[in-house]
Amino acid sequence: MKGKFIVLEGLEGAGKTTARNVVVETLQQLRIKEFVFTREPGGTPLAEKLRQLIKQGEGDEVITDKAELLMLYAARVQLVENVIKPALAQDKWVIGDRHDLSSQAYQGGGRQIDAQLLATLKQTVLGDFCPDLTLYLDIDPEIGLSRARTRGELDRIEQQQLDFFIRTRQRYLQLVAADPNSITINANLAMQEVAQQIEQAIIKWFQQHN
Amino acid sequence: MKGKFIVLEGLEGAGKTTARNVVVETLQQLRIKEFVFTREPGGTPLAEKLRQLIKQGEGDEVITDKAELLMLYAARVQLVENVIKPALAQDKWVIGDRHDLSSQAYQGGGRQIDAQLLATLKQTVLGDFCPDLTLYLDIDPEIGLSRARTRGELDRIEQQQLDFFIRTRQRYLQLVAADPNSITINANLAMQEVAQQIEQAIIKWFQQHN
Repeated sequence: MKGKFIVLEGLEGAGKTTARNVVVETLQQLRIKEFVFTREPGGTPLAEKLRQLIKQGEGDEVITDKAELLMLYAARVQLVENVIKPALAQDKWVIGDRHDLSSQAYQGGGRQIDAQLLATLKQTVLGDFCPDLTLYLDIDPEIGLSRARTRGELDRIEQQQLDFFIRTRQRYLQLVAADPNSITINANLAMQEVAQQIEQAIIKWFQQHN
Repeated sequence: MKGKFIVLEGLEGAGKTTARNVVVETLQQLRIKEFVFTREPGGTPLAEKLRQLIKQGEGDEVITDKAELLMLYAARVQLVENVIKPALAQDKWVIGDRHDLSSQAYQGGGRQIDAQLLATLKQTVLGDFCPDLTLYLDIDPEIGLSRARTRGELDRIEQQQLDFFIRTRQRYLQLVAADPNSITINANLAMQEVAQQIEQAIIKWFQQHN
């Protein structure tokens, strides 16, 4: 069976890691065996270096929104060309912790970078490459952030104000509504209920697409 | 007097460092006192980190042409916003070792990245910001590379084949011919003759623009 690219998206604390485990267990029940796991930004040696610069910055220097965006896309093109496309070509299934939708939502919604600029950059860098399925874990930012805070120190992006995450969520919801290859999961519920939604969504999607 | 942004451009071994000294001495004779020196990629803590990644790569990973280009622009926007614009606002003169023209020539000519893509990226990242004067030091690639080789180990970009530099030079010549704020210097000549050309060019330009 041909490999597919499934992406998990959502705000901090939405439960992407747990969701990934449910996706993999469900796909294994459906006899999918070979997986490659990616995270963005990151997932190649160069992209992980860029991730570190994006997350931690360098000294006291202010990182401009545009530089952040360009580094995100530099990391993404490395991951897509050097990891994701080769894995799909070998019929492996790639499970991604974030992909392009994060840039559209965080940089477009959160940082309010011009949507036309983002669309141009996406088309320029990625062309028509896109996930086969995006699972968007929708969560109230206050709930998500309080979950994320219990995990420890917050990075440069997680330290944004609540408004930032409210705008990011709004953009997520707009974009997912317009994308037929996306499914929204209500991630405000208890973990077991979220897991059930994901399992059912994956089984249904799998039956429709295989 | 208002600060200006003067950029030195040219292939490896064209003599940018010597040219910079001549530019500064000439401007000092013209009573310009406060200079800020930049180099690209680089010139801020984050941009220098990106320079290192661009020049040395990370492990054995292949750096895609697009990732290289995006990292160059990330470094450039940091330098422009955090160093060059603030210096100009304080009426300092900024002397740059390379700027956007290098990306147009090396990535567009050398690596043959689509010119439209480059133009879009430039406009997106820099808007209308551009140097007040570009001194392009034109040199035969074979002469330039043999000079550069005597300086020691070559980096990832300097290790390109001669064809790469021939294409880069052609693109430099096309772009400089179309830019009224550029002056071409024949850098194939002996150092003293090159220095004379630069001094005369700077004096003439200064008289016309001040």
